[in-house]
Amino acid sequence: MGDISSPKEEHLLVLIPWAVNDILDSLKKKFPYIKITVYAQQRVNRKIVSAPIPDDAWKDITILITLFTLPPDPSLAPNLHLVHVLSAGVDRLYSSPIWKETDIAITNSSGVHGPQIAEWIILQTLSHFHRQKLLLELQSQHVWGSDKVPREQQDGVGQTFGVLGYGAIGRQAARVADALGFNVIAFTATPKKTPESKKDRGYIVPRTGDPDGSIPSAWYSGLDKAALHEFLLQDIDVLLVSVPLTPETTHLLAKDEFEILGRRNAFIINVSRGKVLEQKDLIAALKKYSESGATGAATVGAPGLRGAALDVTDPEPLPADSELWDLKNVVVTPHISARGSSNVQRSFQIVEQNLTRIAEGKTLLNVVNRSKGY
Amino acid sequence: MGDISSPKEEHLLVLIPWAVNDILDSLKKKFPYIKITVYAQQRVNRKIVSAPIPDDAWKDITILITLFTLPPDPSLAPNLHLVHVLSAGVDRLYSSPIWKETDIAITNSSGVHGPQIAEWIILQTLSHFHRQKLLLELQSQHVWGSDKVPREQQDGVGQTFGVLGYGAIGRQAARVADALGFNVIAFTATPKKTPESKKDRGYIVPRTGDPDGSIPSAWYSGLDKAALHEFLLQDIDVLLVSVPLTPETTHLLAKDEFEILGRRNAFIINVSRGKVLEQKDLIAALKKYSESGATGAATVGAPGLRGAALDVTDPEPLPADSELWDLKNVVVTPHISARGSSNVQRSFQIVEQNLTRIAEGKTLLNVVNRSKGY
Repeated sequence: MGDISSPKEEHLLVLIPWAVNDILDSLKKKFPYIKITVYAQQRVNRKIVSAPIPDDAWKDITILITLFTLPPDPSLAPNLHLVHVLSAGVDRLYSSPIWKETDIAITNSSGVHGPQIAEWIILQTLSHFHRQKLLLELQSQHVWGSDKVPREQQDGVGQTFGVLGYGAIGRQAARVADALGFNVIAFTATPKKTPESKKDRGYIVPRTGDPDGSIPSAWYSGLDKAALHEFLLQDIDVLLVSVPLTPETTHLLAKDEFEILGRRNAFIINVSRGKVLEQKDLIAALKKYSESGATGAATVGAPGLRGAALDVTDPEPLPADSELWDLKNVVVTPHISARGSSNVQRSFQIVEQNLTRIAEGKTLLNVVNRSKGY
Repeated sequence: MGDISSPKEEHLLVLIPWAVNDILDSLKKKFPYIKITVYAQQRVNRKIVSAPIPDDAWKDITILITLFTLPPDPSLAPNLHLVHVLSAGVDRLYSSPIWKETDIAITNSSGVHGPQIAEWIILQTLSHFHRQKLLLELQSQHVWGSDKVPREQQDGVGQTFGVLGYGAIGRQAARVADALGFNVIAFTATPKKTPESKKDRGYIVPRTGDPDGSIPSAWYSGLDKAALHEFLLQDIDVLLVSVPLTPETTHLLAKDEFEILGRRNAFIINVSRGKVLEQKDLIAALKKYSESGATGAATVGAPGLRGAALDVTDPEPLPADSELWDLKNVVVTPHISARGSSNVQRSFQIVEQNLTRIAEGKTLLNVVNRSKGY
């Protein structure tokens, strides 16, 4: 830590539906000059309910720590210079006056969910290739089904794992996929041609991720369909979709893209947002494969996607009559891949690092770029 | 390759239940001086059935490639100097005259199954911690159960992954666990105090495993209970059992060991042989946890093992009335974790490397130590 002998006083307002007394105590010890106010929030039936926040509660605060509750009018919070959001995606903020009408710094929690979501990604990939549904089914029937499990399982060694959106989640998934023997390739919106540009500049959970961007054997980039198709044509066996939802990524993958991926019977994983995939086209590509009689093992010539793991759908909750639920080659989970007992603690590590950076006059970690939308 | 201008002619006999014509053609091209004889075998109802092998078929062969079929009497094969077995464990050979009465070199396929079995290990670990059974159950009911999935999932970062038996499988599992952020510690029968002794000297699938033994943060070793207990007391969250079955490892883990592991509610994985665990004690330790009302999340103070993933049982097949089938915190699979579409090809890479080593007068790769039993 540098010289923070006489930093400017900061007033933090904490609006989150979790008890964080220990974390705030430790923050107060490290930065004795900060003042902290907490308005209790609760989760009730999937909604966040706050204690009433009087208009003048916003007046003196300089830093807001929130899930997505913001001052209804920026003029109520004239001293606010930093909003830290306890989620990675900030698309729920796009319509807020703070986002649209101010240049108050917004930092997100990108990076804190990397290990947890990457585990979900690897779990669902291996679950598909190793027929976990079948294995659990045999167990529930008390059947030692060694003759019912296909012999031709293919492990990841030498298969290609494509990461569409090489952020914190993509990097940690790449780290594990690489350890499994996959050949990892990456796609980013902007080109990453220099060692410097390949680095991860956001918050990184220690000992995870790909800080230097040294894992992918090849990088692809671009904002148009031609660039995307060049990437998708690289013999991808498993495609991880981990881009943020922005106007540009809405329905980024649709019929044409699934057709390309289907030539090699790719397995697709979505941990981004449901709307990044054109869902009806996805369903068609998945049905094409299962209806071809392919059993889940690689089947030469059978078109379509061999399977999908979806933690996000369009819409959410996924309606009970959606065809996705019953497709044998699909796993749907209710947007839970980011859940983890360390998320809040890690998110406050970003606040902590930024309090230090503010005192030292350095640029902040994890600042959201409003024009990019993430 | 060194000078193999005038190597001694070799006569290979191939006795395996797989068609390997392409592999044998390629072997013949690389080593034109070898002669290959194949007796077809088939799997029928879990048994291997061979075409009849006349007694004089063994007479001229120098190298036998087999799953476990051996000459009934070593004197029938006076020129045999190498038996290559297409499995990693060789316990099925212990009672054979070739094992007991000769010093013919036996090489195993240790190493070829590393990636596949490590995937099963990681799959079952993540499946437990992420409640895959519950997630699949919700999907089958068309329920978007975001409020039914516990929020307090713990990822692997900073948890301790103990590997009991740091061979090819343990090393590849360690590689992936390390990438997930686990702290890996290793236990071996003999001490590994020097960098040289930590190396993996067996066959390694390229780009996998831990060739230098650089992954574990700490190594433990010994052949007695005290040494084993010292290892088990290292705050292990996930214990992988990947030792070979030998007289010394039979019931290596029983009541006392499960008691130690249960203090921290460890999760246990067995890919070795069922008899390495005292199964009735295992069941008791698993029931203790589930009966304490613990739901699968770490529960302070609840004793017992939080769960188990067993690809091997005692006996096999596991009887339909075994309690293991219905324990909610247990996954039982029918000894399938080693199945993979690349196994046979990788095993023949060992044969290929050894044909080169024979021609160059070097020591063989993957030679089984009869006194150790692996």
